[in-house]
Amino acid sequence: MLVLITYDVNTENAAGKTRLRKVAKQCVNYGRRVQNSVFECLLDNAQSITLKAILADIIDPEKDSLRIYYLGNKYQTKIEHIGVDRGIAADQTLIL
Amino acid sequence: MLVLITYDVNTENAAGKTRLRKVAKQCVNYGRRVQNSVFECLLDNAQSITLKAILADIIDPEKDSLRIYYLGNKYQTKIEHIGVDRGIAADQTLIL
Repeated sequence: MLVLITYDVNTENAAGKTRLRKVAKQCVNYGRRVQNSVFECLLDNAQSITLKAILADIIDPEKDSLRIYYLGNKYQTKIEHIGVDRGIAADQTLIL
Repeated sequence: MLVLITYDVNTENAAGKTRLRKVAKQCVNYGRRVQNSVFECLLDNAQSITLKAILADIIDPEKDSLRIYYLGNKYQTKIEHIGVDRGIAADQTLIL
């Protein structure tokens, strides 16, 4: 299924900047960055639970916001994009 | 249906900052801001097409990125939130 992760991390201080880096690093491990704070991840249920737990552990729930959207398996028709594209689709094979 | 709007506007120059303000202003008219560059809008098909056209007209497609996710009518179970909350749900009545 496609899991969309969006986050706002409060980077007022150094601790916030560290949290932001950690969140992005974990998301990169699980999906592709489509915008600065938006990741699309193709995950099964177990991976989804794991990623959520990892991110919940990193963020400061009193300062940061994390939202997770479950778009299911038939997500292709549910997404539209306009403008510059940061990467390849999560389910596309990258041929080097 | 719930329409999720996420955007990255390139604010390197004054024109970019103006585009960012315009995009946010239009999104505020149609839904609620859940994160800095993420809006949830409860729209019918006609409104959705209108908003997309308005935003596509504002952004610079060579510099900015706009993504639209269609979460349908049964969106309540498709969203999870952790941390600080910026607003009320799009379909919640605000009692003053």
